[in-house]
Amino acid sequence: MTGNERVHIYDSTLRDGAQAVGITFSQSGKLRHVRKLDELGVSFIEGGYAGSNPKDMQFFADVRKENLTHSKIVAFGSTRRAGKKVADDPFVQALLAAETEYCAIYGKTWKLHVAEVLRTTQKENAQMIADTVGFLREKGRRVFFDAEHFFDGYDDDPEFALKMLETAVEAGAGGVVLCDTNGGTLPWEIEAVTAAVCARFPGVDVGVHAHNDSGLGVANSIAAVRAGANQVQGCMNGYGERTGNANLTTIIPTLELKMGRKCIADGQLKNLRATSLYIDDLVNQRPDIRAPYVGETSFSHKGGAHVAGVQSNPATFEHVPPESVGNTRQIVLSELSGGANVLYRVKQLGRDYENVSREEVKEILRELKQKESEGYTFESADGSFQLLVQKALRRHEPFFQLDAFRVIVEKRGSDQPCVSEATIKLRVDGEAEHTVGEGSGPVEALDRALRKALTRFYPSISDVLLTDFRVRILDPKEATAAVTRVLIESSDGDRTWGTVGVSPNIIEASWQALLDAVEFKLMSDARR
Amino acid sequence: MTGNERVHIYDSTLRDGAQAVGITFSQSGKLRHVRKLDELGVSFIEGGYAGSNPKDMQFFADVRKENLTHSKIVAFGSTRRAGKKVADDPFVQALLAAETEYCAIYGKTWKLHVAEVLRTTQKENAQMIADTVGFLREKGRRVFFDAEHFFDGYDDDPEFALKMLETAVEAGAGGVVLCDTNGGTLPWEIEAVTAAVCARFPGVDVGVHAHNDSGLGVANSIAAVRAGANQVQGCMNGYGERTGNANLTTIIPTLELKMGRKCIADGQLKNLRATSLYIDDLVNQRPDIRAPYVGETSFSHKGGAHVAGVQSNPATFEHVPPESVGNTRQIVLSELSGGANVLYRVKQLGRDYENVSREEVKEILRELKQKESEGYTFESADGSFQLLVQKALRRHEPFFQLDAFRVIVEKRGSDQPCVSEATIKLRVDGEAEHTVGEGSGPVEALDRALRKALTRFYPSISDVLLTDFRVRILDPKEATAAVTRVLIESSDGDRTWGTVGVSPNIIEASWQALLDAVEFKLMSDARR
Repeated sequence: MTGNERVHIYDSTLRDGAQAVGITFSQSGKLRHVRKLDELGVSFIEGGYAGSNPKDMQFFADVRKENLTHSKIVAFGSTRRAGKKVADDPFVQALLAAETEYCAIYGKTWKLHVAEVLRTTQKENAQMIADTVGFLREKGRRVFFDAEHFFDGYDDDPEFALKMLETAVEAGAGGVVLCDTNGGTLPWEIEAVTAAVCARFPGVDVGVHAHNDSGLGVANSIAAVRAGANQVQGCMNGYGERTGNANLTTIIPTLELKMGRKCIADGQLKNLRATSLYIDDLVNQRPDIRAPYVGETSFSHKGGAHVAGVQSNPATFEHVPPESVGNTRQIVLSELSGGANVLYRVKQLGRDYENVSREEVKEILRELKQKESEGYTFESADGSFQLLVQKALRRHEPFFQLDAFRVIVEKRGSDQPCVSEATIKLRVDGEAEHTVGEGSGPVEALDRALRKALTRFYPSISDVLLTDFRVRILDPKEATAAVTRVLIESSDGDRTWGTVGVSPNIIEASWQALLDAVEFKLMSDARR
Repeated sequence: MTGNERVHIYDSTLRDGAQAVGITFSQSGKLRHVRKLDELGVSFIEGGYAGSNPKDMQFFADVRKENLTHSKIVAFGSTRRAGKKVADDPFVQALLAAETEYCAIYGKTWKLHVAEVLRTTQKENAQMIADTVGFLREKGRRVFFDAEHFFDGYDDDPEFALKMLETAVEAGAGGVVLCDTNGGTLPWEIEAVTAAVCARFPGVDVGVHAHNDSGLGVANSIAAVRAGANQVQGCMNGYGERTGNANLTTIIPTLELKMGRKCIADGQLKNLRATSLYIDDLVNQRPDIRAPYVGETSFSHKGGAHVAGVQSNPATFEHVPPESVGNTRQIVLSELSGGANVLYRVKQLGRDYENVSREEVKEILRELKQKESEGYTFESADGSFQLLVQKALRRHEPFFQLDAFRVIVEKRGSDQPCVSEATIKLRVDGEAEHTVGEGSGPVEALDRALRKALTRFYPSISDVLLTDFRVRILDPKEATAAVTRVLIESSDGDRTWGTVGVSPNIIEASWQALLDAVEFKLMSDARR
């Protein structure tokens, strides 16, 4: 293996990552994940455990319609069961039904597991590997053999473990993946064993699949690459069972920036932080602010020598340039930097904001800090941010006056569905409108009543669609009286904008975000 | 160095750890931290940066009154400033005023920093090291020399970097600590450089101080130990600037359980998880559920084969016994779960479920998969899980009949608050009750009306408190019509249980979770 050969990233987020407590992808979320990872340019995306549930099979059908540029979808499964015929095994059949070019199957390489988990003979175990790889090859699939517990198995009996790999290779597996399934192996052990495997099977692709049980998921993955592995399996943001899988979000920049190994598409490394946040959002995980490379505080500097040093020469206190992974340097506890950030964001709003004064920036900053202390965030709520700036500059003119709204949710009988109805009374230039809307829930009913009321005065409102709706309870320990934050994303076909609302009442929080959404639309239209 | 020599743990949580965004210790919290770490049996506890603020000096005065068994307190500071006399340097004076047996001072070993940060000559830099170490030795202090940016400095000019260490050793430093200050060095580089330092300075204690910027804080620390270092600096729970310092909570069990090196007091390893949680509590941090060894989910098992395997022999799927670090095994339910998981969880419900048949387990599994495909999760909803089991076994008898509920949320005027009111009509044994409740939001109002209605029939309902409330939009692209999942945690003082509801209507989803919460309570009471 030469030092600059490509390392293939194999993303297991949808399969092994989804084993994590609290991580669940919706069906559309899985497809969005695939599109995002394809854009990033990983080589393989594991779609799920074929046959384990109907949702995974539906996903394989759906993903075939996607037009992917960089990534191949892999169906995951196992060797046939002991004592059964491979062609009759429903899980092996499910692998075929997934209709992917690539399959990954796991099998046993640790004698303890053959005896105590499979409860079969070593000979039958080898036959299970040979049969399953052979059968899938016959059906035209390319096969990775995931050697489960390989390092434990090698430690116990190297010849047996290697023999199982040989069986897979001889049956036609294009690659063998060495799994540290329990996550207990140390980096120098991983390196020595991987080197031995690479020496034994020249020309065969060797992968590594590490877990973070000893806090060594990243170290073990790069140790294997150093020893000759050219495929790294892991999960975005380190999701995964127990302590998580090896974190691809850390491994990718380490390979590219520190080991000179190409592993994603050209120019994509600078989207790493955005991709990481996107995926946290898909599964509603709070981003880890201290995550290597991509965390919010990963390039933060507190006052004193560090700040002075980093300003004169960033290399004095930064291991890589933050912008290389799409992150930014932060100077913590500096009023000035707060002002500079706000000024930067305000100027980005366009020509109308070019001449904002120092005093006005201070006023906006004060308003922003107040709102943030109440629980508002403006990272993705650009619409609400612009309205806040307008209000702070005293330029905002409301497009209508709300007189009242009322939302009713009713259920009559335990087996009857809930009915939601909202009424809205408002005035535009003194002229009143009073409307009612229904919906599958209270927020939808409210949204419909609001549009119905406004469309007479502002016909362009009918172009606006709500494209995303997220709810976060900010202080869960307060239970049902806790403060709720609602984030809404809207689109009128041309543009997309985000708005935010915060209140102990979820309907009120939703109302604020809906109101900002329509006001932003009307304000933008008025300027054209 | 022999392989079984003690490794000295040097805890920097109160100094480097407290540099993290969001981590602040109170004065009494610092003392509690010291007592806890002394109990655990670390060798050194860094108290703070002497002279940086009055609170740190007060801490050194307070901690002298503590009667510590295992740990020595260390005062942290730096070499004297360039061009000044050591005896006149107020920070060096503060080190003396701290009155600790041990001092740690940092100095420069990277030419870039000498030129660009200190802006002085290499000769003066060496003199600063020699003067400061010599002065502190003269005053009877034992001194560690923290070689800041040592690995970057060595990479740039090994002879210069080693020369600076030699200067410190010749001036009387008892130990040199190799710092990867920017956190950018790879484990094999750490190992090679540490080995070179150990070879050059036989008999001198060598330490390592790693950061986690590349996700390698733990790997770099143990690589240095492998190369001969006998002191590891780090922070509990991996607190620290940017991405955090090397995580002692991971390093300690790795050294003790996997490398055979003693580093804390006898019998204390089993208090590791409790210590970790205690310290999170001191600084009000949410514990990382996926933290290696000590996290809540670090020994959880979700997949069917894993559960079956771990029940027959824990070594099949666990890298160390969870109890060795004071943790426990958890069996989690999910859409991937098979019969074995379900059977295990059902049996855990108690004696009433001991004789569940294979057929019944299948029925429960079928019901579970159906619910999960609709968006329910039962990982934290143990109350809803038990009700589901009861229903699948046809043992469930409802405690009341719902006739109707109605929730009204109303806002009259844009500057008026929202008012929430709920009415409930239900029957218990044919007897009707009709109540109304108010709240800060619709769910609180509904919860109050429900308790009011039930308390007459079931007085124990008044003991139930909602302790947590979470909302998750499952398919956000459907916007306000998306399916909503509500998770509620309830407690009656004795026990805590979780329940779940799913619906496109957030009020209906909340209702389901509330209903399960009270039904679980009544079912449990009825069994007593």
